[in-house]
Amino acid sequence: MRIFGIDPGSHRTGYGCIDTNGSRHRLIVCGVLTAPSRITFPEKLLTIHDELEVLLHRHRPETVAIEDLFFARNARSALKLGHVRGVVMLAASEAGIPVSEYTPTEVKRTVVGYGRAEKQQVQKMIMLLLGLDQAPSPFDVSDALAVAICHSHAIGPTSKRAVGSLPGATSWRSYRPGSAALREDC
Amino acid sequence: MRIFGIDPGSHRTGYGCIDTNGSRHRLIVCGVLTAPSRITFPEKLLTIHDELEVLLHRHRPETVAIEDLFFARNARSALKLGHVRGVVMLAASEAGIPVSEYTPTEVKRTVVGYGRAEKQQVQKMIMLLLGLDQAPSPFDVSDALAVAICHSHAIGPTSKRAVGSLPGATSWRSYRPGSAALREDC
Repeated sequence: MRIFGIDPGSHRTGYGCIDTNGSRHRLIVCGVLTAPSRITFPEKLLTIHDELEVLLHRHRPETVAIEDLFFARNARSALKLGHVRGVVMLAASEAGIPVSEYTPTEVKRTVVGYGRAEKQQVQKMIMLLLGLDQAPSPFDVSDALAVAICHSHAIGPTSKRAVGSLPGATSWRSYRPGSAALREDC
Repeated sequence: MRIFGIDPGSHRTGYGCIDTNGSRHRLIVCGVLTAPSRITFPEKLLTIHDELEVLLHRHRPETVAIEDLFFARNARSALKLGHVRGVVMLAASEAGIPVSEYTPTEVKRTVVGYGRAEKQQVQKMIMLLLGLDQAPSPFDVSDALAVAICHSHAIGPTSKRAVGSLPGATSWRSYRPGSAALREDC
C-alpha cells in the first residue's frame, strides 16, 4: 500500500510517501513545502495546494495520513494552521484520496513506543524503519513519514503492493536549504 | 466595484456579492454554502470550494472580503474554522482575486457605527443599506454582506462599475431551508 504522510504547518509543510505491507516500509519521496515570504497568505495557500496536487498526481498514494493538531499557543495560531490543513485536505479530496488523521501522541506511540517521545527520537526511528543512511530533516519531514508509518500500523498487514516485491529502500538525501525549488524531494 | 463578502463558518458559510461606488450599494447575489452532514470533512471542504469557485466565476468580483475570527471557544474550534477559511482563500486566489480581511468589530463599526452591535442590528442595517424588502437571513448571509460593505468603506469612493448607472436593487428573497440546492441564492 502506498501512503502519503503530511505534517501541515503554517510555515513549512512536511511530506513523506512510503510503500508498506504493514511491517516493512520503503521510502518513495519526502520533502517540505514552503512558499516565498513575499507573497500574500492566500497565494501561499495556493502554492502549497498546487505543489501537493502535483505530488499526489505523481505518486498516486492510496491514502493520505495527516498529523492532527497537538498544541496551539492560542486560537489564532490554531486558526492559521487550520488554513493549511484545509487546503491539504482539499488537495487529497480533489484527487479522490481518503484522509486519515492521527494525533502526535498516537504517532509517537506507534513509531517510538512512547507517546511523549522527542522529535529526535522519532527522527531516529524513521531512519531505522526506512533503512535510511541519514536522518530525515527537518522535523516536518520525519513527522510526516512517522504519520504515514502510523497509518500503516493502524490498518494492519496488507499484501497489496507488497514492499518485499519492490527494490531496496531509496537512500535518504538530506534536505537542501536555500534551493530555488519549492519542493525538496529526498 | 464588485465585492464578494464571505463569512466562513465550520457549519455554514455565508456569502453576499454587491456592486458599490462606496456610498451606494446594490445586491447582486447572496446565500449560504453548506454541505451534507453524511460526507467526510475533506469532502465538505471540496463542496464548499467547488461551489465558491462557480460563484466567483459567475459573478467575477474584483475583491473578496472575508470576516476574520472574532471568537473561538478553543483552539480546536479555531482550527476547524481555519480549514474552511483556507479553502475560501484558496478559491479566491485560484480566481486571481485579492482577499481583504476585517474583524467583526471593524465590520460592525462600519455598518452600524458601534463595534459591539448585535447581529440583528447588522441585519437591519444591511436591509436599509441595500434597500431590501426583507432582512437577509440567516446571520451568516447578513454578516457576509456586512463585510462586503465594510470593504467598500475601507477603500473609499469609486466610480468604477458605478452603482448609480445600474438598475435598482435586487429584491431579497429569503433563505429557503430544506431546499435540495446546496446554494441558496437571494
